[in-house]
Amino acid sequence: MLYLVGLGLADETDITVKGLEIVKKAERVYLEAYTSILLVDKEKLEAFYGRPVIVADRELVESGSDDILAGADKTDVAFLVVGDPFGATTHTDLVLRARELGIESRVIPNASIMSGIGCTGLQLYNFGQTVSMVFFTENWKPSSYYDRVKENVQLGLHTLVLVDIKVKEPSWENLARGRMIYEPPRYMTVAQCASQMLETEEERKEGAFGPDSLAVGAARVGAADQKLVAGTLKELTDVDMGPPLHSLVLLGRKTHDLERDYIRQFAVDTATFDAQWAKGYGASS
Amino acid sequence: MLYLVGLGLADETDITVKGLEIVKKAERVYLEAYTSILLVDKEKLEAFYGRPVIVADRELVESGSDDILAGADKTDVAFLVVGDPFGATTHTDLVLRARELGIESRVIPNASIMSGIGCTGLQLYNFGQTVSMVFFTENWKPSSYYDRVKENVQLGLHTLVLVDIKVKEPSWENLARGRMIYEPPRYMTVAQCASQMLETEEERKEGAFGPDSLAVGAARVGAADQKLVAGTLKELTDVDMGPPLHSLVLLGRKTHDLERDYIRQFAVDTATFDAQWAKGYGASS
Repeated sequence: MLYLVGLGLADETDITVKGLEIVKKAERVYLEAYTSILLVDKEKLEAFYGRPVIVADRELVESGSDDILAGADKTDVAFLVVGDPFGATTHTDLVLRARELGIESRVIPNASIMSGIGCTGLQLYNFGQTVSMVFFTENWKPSSYYDRVKENVQLGLHTLVLVDIKVKEPSWENLARGRMIYEPPRYMTVAQCASQMLETEEERKEGAFGPDSLAVGAARVGAADQKLVAGTLKELTDVDMGPPLHSLVLLGRKTHDLERDYIRQFAVDTATFDAQWAKGYGASS
Repeated sequence: MLYLVGLGLADETDITVKGLEIVKKAERVYLEAYTSILLVDKEKLEAFYGRPVIVADRELVESGSDDILAGADKTDVAFLVVGDPFGATTHTDLVLRARELGIESRVIPNASIMSGIGCTGLQLYNFGQTVSMVFFTENWKPSSYYDRVKENVQLGLHTLVLVDIKVKEPSWENLARGRMIYEPPRYMTVAQCASQMLETEEERKEGAFGPDSLAVGAARVGAADQKLVAGTLKELTDVDMGPPLHSLVLLGRKTHDLERDYIRQFAVDTATFDAQWAKGYGASS
């Protein structure tokens, strides 16, 4: 059996009791470690599980899935995914491959940022499409996300913006030279995300959002030091939310008063928040 | 401290290790038991926790929140919620009330149906707004959900339809006589949901969907006997997916081939599925 086990969002104790039992019994345990990270390292997980954990990077999952699945028709293999196994990134391809090989699979769900973002007090019903923000470079500032944000904005819906992480990515320079040498990991911050959004708006000028649009920054959702901040995009470009992982929610205009009351607690500046709110948010807008 | 602890979707072992530690130590443990249910009963939870659990019905949470919060400034109170505490239904009002009383609160996230529905292989990025379907009666067939489904359909997005449950609801007859006598619990099925959707479409005639629209039914997500079925809405009106809880996803037109490959495994009838798919789904649509 192939078990895809969600690890949740913060640390080693966010695994479910069911998931932990599976990990303790499985023949081999893989940790998918390139689409998201826990806030603790592999050694802490191994100590908690009492088991060695094999780190599965992108190369192994995308090119070596048959190695991961080897023998899973007879014994149990656990494939651990931060968040929910089918959350922000889907691992449906691994399950489909297992099926081709006649291997059964089972998913152990867990918290995903897609639902965990409810900790902002914003109602999940009021979210539209989720988008991803990649690190802009000097020559590459993809803005296709903007179209989807605009669709959400036009419907008055919130947008969850998932921010880029770079874990074990070869640098362009090293790739060009055929060397597999990796860059140090990088995690986008709420401030960078807000800043890149404003950069896109300046280029597009379609008014989907602007410096005065209200947004919520979330850091380390589910951890004891979880941090939430509400403010305008301009304010968020200056905010320091501490260590990764970060996410951002662009507020939709169709917002309930209870949502306002909740996020107002985290306002960078309550006066700015109230002034912007009065200009275009709320159920009557 | 007030702890809002997510229980996940299926049984007592879906709680996280972190959540279980909190439940074992808390002074009082409440179980919110009216917006969703686990597939196991209170006694099983109590045996697993080694603790008594107080069932919190709608009356207690909405009118008696100060009883729940009593003493939580000095000791720990755990408030258990099926799924994620801020998932399908938000409990932000309880947290806000705690704050007014100077009581700290902390959320322990878990799987929610809003992300767990990823088990269908449909990408969470491609979902629009989530809607709820209530039990229609002879004189009350609310169709405001239809407008939101239509918005999703126009953008080519999937719609998660959460179906109604009636737990400990007084009957109208008994309410009229001032008696608090409760109806037996009722859980909407995928078949009923599909049938009510077609009823709304017949009335609205705006073409947001029809008998041939593709949808996925999901039952008991996260449980060992989880069941998925893909088919047209018409086919789903006849499908028997077994015990609760059920959910339905109306497929958006902007669907990835990998999503098709995944849900096709669960087709009621592969020929019908392929024929409908060819008519209007896929990335090129």
